[in-house]
Amino acid sequence: MATTVERLLPTDEAEALLGLTREIAEHELRPRADEAEARAEFPADAYRVLGKAGLLSLPFAEEHGGGAQPYEVYLQVLEEIATAWASVGVGVSVHALTCLAVDQNADDALREEWLPRMLSGDWLGAYCLSEPQAGSDVSGIRTRARRDGEAYVVHGTKQWISNGSHADYYVLFARTDDDPRRGLTGFLVPADTEGMSFGAPEKKMGLHADVTTQVIFDGARIPVSQRIGEEGQGMKIALSALDAGRLGIAAVATGIGQAALAAAVAWAGEREQFGQPIGSFQGLQFLLADMAAAVEQARATYLHAARLKDAGRRFSRQASIAKLTATDAAMRVSTDAVQVFGGYGYTADYPVERFFRDAKVTQIFEGTNQIQRMVIGRDLLA
Amino acid sequence: MATTVERLLPTDEAEALLGLTREIAEHELRPRADEAEARAEFPADAYRVLGKAGLLSLPFAEEHGGGAQPYEVYLQVLEEIATAWASVGVGVSVHALTCLAVDQNADDALREEWLPRMLSGDWLGAYCLSEPQAGSDVSGIRTRARRDGEAYVVHGTKQWISNGSHADYYVLFARTDDDPRRGLTGFLVPADTEGMSFGAPEKKMGLHADVTTQVIFDGARIPVSQRIGEEGQGMKIALSALDAGRLGIAAVATGIGQAALAAAVAWAGEREQFGQPIGSFQGLQFLLADMAAAVEQARATYLHAARLKDAGRRFSRQASIAKLTATDAAMRVSTDAVQVFGGYGYTADYPVERFFRDAKVTQIFEGTNQIQRMVIGRDLLA
Amino acid sequence: MATTVERLLPTDEAEALLGLTREIAEHELRPRADEAEARAEFPADAYRVLGKAGLLSLPFAEEHGGGAQPYEVYLQVLEEIATAWASVGVGVSVHALTCLAVDQNADDALREEWLPRMLSGDWLGAYCLSEPQAGSDVSGIRTRARRDGEAYVVHGTKQWISNGSHADYYVLFARTDDDPRRGLTGFLVPADTEGMSFGAPEKKMGLHADVTTQVIFDGARIPVSQRIGEEGQGMKIALSALDAGRLGIAAVATGIGQAALAAAVAWAGEREQFGQPIGSFQGLQFLLADMAAAVEQARATYLHAARLKDAGRRFSRQASIAKLTATDAAMRVSTDAVQVFGGYGYTADYPVERFFRDAKVTQIFEGTNQIQRMVIGRDLLA
Amino acid sequence: MATTVERLLPTDEAEALLGLTREIAEHELRPRADEAEARAEFPADAYRVLGKAGLLSLPFAEEHGGGAQPYEVYLQVLEEIATAWASVGVGVSVHALTCLAVDQNADDALREEWLPRMLSGDWLGAYCLSEPQAGSDVSGIRTRARRDGEAYVVHGTKQWISNGSHADYYVLFARTDDDPRRGLTGFLVPADTEGMSFGAPEKKMGLHADVTTQVIFDGARIPVSQRIGEEGQGMKIALSALDAGRLGIAAVATGIGQAALAAAVAWAGEREQFGQPIGSFQGLQFLLADMAAAVEQARATYLHAARLKDAGRRFSRQASIAKLTATDAAMRVSTDAVQVFGGYGYTADYPVERFFRDAKVTQIFEGTNQIQRMVIGRDLLA
Repeated sequence: MATTVERLLPTDEAEALLGLTREIAEHELRPRADEAEARAEFPADAYRVLGKAGLLSLPFAEEHGGGAQPYEVYLQVLEEIATAWASVGVGVSVHALTCLAVDQNADDALREEWLPRMLSGDWLGAYCLSEPQAGSDVSGIRTRARRDGEAYVVHGTKQWISNGSHADYYVLFARTDDDPRRGLTGFLVPADTEGMSFGAPEKKMGLHADVTTQVIFDGARIPVSQRIGEEGQGMKIALSALDAGRLGIAAVATGIGQAALAAAVAWAGEREQFGQPIGSFQGLQFLLADMAAAVEQARATYLHAARLKDAGRRFSRQASIAKLTATDAAMRVSTDAVQVFGGYGYTADYPVERFFRDAKVTQIFEGTNQIQRMVIGRDLLA
Repeated sequence: MATTVERLLPTDEAEALLGLTREIAEHELRPRADEAEARAEFPADAYRVLGKAGLLSLPFAEEHGGGAQPYEVYLQVLEEIATAWASVGVGVSVHALTCLAVDQNADDALREEWLPRMLSGDWLGAYCLSEPQAGSDVSGIRTRARRDGEAYVVHGTKQWISNGSHADYYVLFARTDDDPRRGLTGFLVPADTEGMSFGAPEKKMGLHADVTTQVIFDGARIPVSQRIGEEGQGMKIALSALDAGRLGIAAVATGIGQAALAAAVAWAGEREQFGQPIGSFQGLQFLLADMAAAVEQARATYLHAARLKDAGRRFSRQASIAKLTATDAAMRVSTDAVQVFGGYGYTADYPVERFFRDAKVTQIFEGTNQIQRMVIGRDLLA
Repeated sequence: MATTVERLLPTDEAEALLGLTREIAEHELRPRADEAEARAEFPADAYRVLGKAGLLSLPFAEEHGGGAQPYEVYLQVLEEIATAWASVGVGVSVHALTCLAVDQNADDALREEWLPRMLSGDWLGAYCLSEPQAGSDVSGIRTRARRDGEAYVVHGTKQWISNGSHADYYVLFARTDDDPRRGLTGFLVPADTEGMSFGAPEKKMGLHADVTTQVIFDGARIPVSQRIGEEGQGMKIALSALDAGRLGIAAVATGIGQAALAAAVAWAGEREQFGQPIGSFQGLQFLLADMAAAVEQARATYLHAARLKDAGRRFSRQASIAKLTATDAAMRVSTDAVQVFGGYGYTADYPVERFFRDAKVTQIFEGTNQIQRMVIGRDLLA
Repeated sequence: MATTVERLLPTDEAEALLGLTREIAEHELRPRADEAEARAEFPADAYRVLGKAGLLSLPFAEEHGGGAQPYEVYLQVLEEIATAWASVGVGVSVHALTCLAVDQNADDALREEWLPRMLSGDWLGAYCLSEPQAGSDVSGIRTRARRDGEAYVVHGTKQWISNGSHADYYVLFARTDDDPRRGLTGFLVPADTEGMSFGAPEKKMGLHADVTTQVIFDGARIPVSQRIGEEGQGMKIALSALDAGRLGIAAVATGIGQAALAAAVAWAGEREQFGQPIGSFQGLQFLLADMAAAVEQARATYLHAARLKDAGRRFSRQASIAKLTATDAAMRVSTDAVQVFGGYGYTADYPVERFFRDAKVTQIFEGTNQIQRMVIGRDLLA
């Protein structure tokens, strides 16, 4: 098809992985997406399939059970997943974030014990950072972890937690000290921990199968051995994970844009008005051209940031640029895809209205696009 | 409030009308909107209230029961209604379109008999133009009206019909001849006509209380006396009504933008992050400023077109410009309003996600914005 | 022509004024613009013609020699002048600003003595506010006026002064006190005052006939009787004049946009490629449509602000919105007009490259568009 | 500096080449640009320096004297040149285009005889395609080449020819047959050919040192041996060269954007208003962030297309996307860079007004951005 993505992959293994992903996306994800989104069902099956195929642990070392793939490859796999089903793409990205936090920051004991299970494909994680009063502002976190012997006792409420109530474990950030920046600490919390409960699924406009809930800690006891790194390192852990997480969201947003573009191009070739396919009108062709350009740019931009990361270079500004531009592109392209479909695009009978609803939140989570501009601007002026 | 609209109204009567409208909007419309939209309920009560207040017949002559208001005033009333509840704004605009078609094109007998009832405030009309295969392309209409003695027998299916199944009468455009442009004829069809049935409400992404359905004609008999104008004048009637209809949609879209702006400004003054109201951050202030500018421009632009119409001048290009720019503004401003609210804006707990979903269709109906650009471009180059 | 502006004017007198303006613009301004711009010549003749026709004093009371026209009319005259020649439009707007400062703030003696001459059509004024270190930031003004008996002695350097070295008088803002906001005072300085000199014309990218220079005060003595208002009121005078001045720039920018649109439409109807006029291609038609929409919106927006001012209502936010949007529109429309002309548009053989160069500075002067967003944002959140 | 470009280069040799280029750019190009641009001087010295350094022949085989560099590397060299001096970047890109036409299409004899000289670094070429009536529409070419024994006799006028009158040879496209598409043929024409003359330099708004002229053929005799490929292949040669040429312009435009960004960031860190550097204001930071994002995207996008080309893959759509987006980015970023500088940016005392003037033509030449959208749209819908 004319909207096939022209990828440049570094290895034959990567080619095979992308092929496998497209296969799964086409047969296991896309066919289930509409109904699960309409019902706001958590896609447990989808994660099982992806896990079995090894697609939940790609960017981690083989010794811990990972796929040993560079971000350049992992993100393109993620994009293909999100092209078929954005909610699942978000879930995969969130899971990777939890593994990254442990992989890069936990002491050896915690890492050796837990990371292999986290990367087994059987487990799915959740990332408990945001709170009702602390969205973009991590320093505003109020959830408290009070040391009590060989454990911490946690009180507080997390919000917007993807995979909430469905995850097998939670990576939690809580306050062990009043210092706004150095007072945060990370923890690994298995799902069966007592004193942890979940709010009802949040009533979001889209991404319904990315079930998010409040996660409420009411005296949950977490052994000191499940603390990730030292006390007070939470902010550092959270922020460094964010750079990688932003790349994940950029890839997901690119997938949404790609799906919207492909749908619009297909429709423009079929739908007739004034006696000809609407794609034969130059005004519409130009619109499609601008949509294709936006998606192409989004992909090239996240790949550049990923390759910098893979090369061990600084990539923070580039990650923020990738997140900002890919999500803005997803919003614009999906808005225009509905336009191409006209009245039909505004109904649940075609998927473009879903892309439009899904796209919006990508401009908001993992740091709003305003936060991204702050990061970029400060880096420029540093 | 700082987002109060600064209107320039031509008369004290107009000031009073706007005051009355705001009163009704605040007490009768806004409080019911959320629930009715969530349930996709047709707002019959709302139309009754508006009808009793005389707000369903403003831009028509007093001798037929109208309010004798210029479009400049009528449209601002419509904007205020849509600011409180966009679906109702659309319904009011559609109703006006049906009255206009009869007022300007029917022979005296038809007008004298029916227009007073249509303007009574008790009746609501529907406008049956679009078909599954004929959206922007009116010449593609396939519904047939075959002359049979003193009646026409109609077969065919209309789609996207606002107020469908709830209206008291339907203004119908059907083909009486094969000529694509001169073969259309208009009819006034009371709701109790036999041979007319309705599809299920269309599953739209937004504007749920603007219930739209298919309207199916299967041998419906319409007396010749209910033909609007002569055979073959349908295209002319439809297109001339469209210019006025576009102004209506421009006003509705301005209302959506205004509602989104007001919500965003209020939230920016309350919501705190980093220890201060988010409205104190210049990046957000600039975003709000651009939103306010877009809404202000939308309003000024539709008012200029309306005043040209009121002065009896040509206003077709200006109406298309008003429709194009006001609906694009509504889409952009409502997208940004969700952004200002962050994660909260993405939930059903706040109204901005509704504005965002509602705004999208305004870029599509009454002539997509691509059609508007065609109209403008041709007029420029004529 | 298809790009004729559809104006709604309040009186027959206003119609006549606009007609007169178009006449002068067509025969006296447009034919001289190219050469004068190429040579960076001050258009003294043009101001003489406008002055004789009474177009330099429109929005002032008849008793002082003004034209007694509302801003709604004055600004449309200004727009027509700028459509023919932007530099002259700027000069007229600056002159009006100087008259306004005196009219609204001077004591009776100063006003009676000077205003009639300023409004005579023979005199032209300059407005000395900006300094090398104080552009958008009026509080940063360093020019000093030290009281010495019945006079003030002034030292300091002004920059970007339109009509500099050509004006008959200068309205000067200088510091009489260290208080950043309450330390400014306004003065009326005739051109023959000793101790005042001028820098070389600044080498600007465009608006060459809007000659700007430094104005250097080196011990100039200004009688106390030529102080405008009280000591310390300078900031208030400057800021209130700015609101009106912004409307003037909005009108000038609209004129630039209108000129660019008209040129592009005309060229699109003539220039052939692929065997047909380029205006027959839908992609170009849509571009022209968006250009026309932007100009229409700019005009409607400044007129709304002007009518609020004429009605004695608050119009500060609306003036900033008008300035912001009209100048952004002028930049975008003139950029696209060059595009419509293709390679030809990039040469001095056609006027569109001049519109493009002229447009840019309108986004900068009388408060950059960033300053406008600050004004709007603060007003929204107040 | 914070605006240093983070490049990912494939080899150490490429790193060295980029280092060399930056050295030359910094010491030989940038210091001469202002004056040469002001005087519209052809930068013969600059090409000599680049030629000696081997930078005029990078993407060609070593056996013909080329640098054997992939496009991925060549284009980044070109970007660095254009960052220092856009006109020279254009000249280098045009020269490469002429070499490419010969390299890919000439028979062995012509290639062996001429290509080594063309790649020697001593020679510079010009590309004679456009005509007064044939800009974007190559099929409209009227210049005639009539066979006369062992030569062709050429009559006709070319326009917008970069390096015109300064080049050592001209690659010419002329009509050998009336067929609009199959009637074109390419020729290599040494500068000393009789019957060839040059118009005066065209009076462009910017890129003054990219001297362009008409090239007038009045009975010039070109031996059959200097025909590039067969008769009638000219359209194919021209179009295939265009894909590569578009990448060149994308790289040049990225360079302009990068230069504008770097200047704006530096100024924002120095210029003070309201008692602090203007870069400390969030509104300006966000503007700079969006500028940086646009440049980053432009670069990533042309590199993706270049890598497809280097891999022997189809890259036509991607080249058009790169050209479209990089040149739009250059225009937007340079417009905003002038804005960051305020009034100073509007003067010849700072380089940003030059970037702004230079950027505009990149949206026009090598196929206007409207032509790019046609190419992209058709490819999508194929």
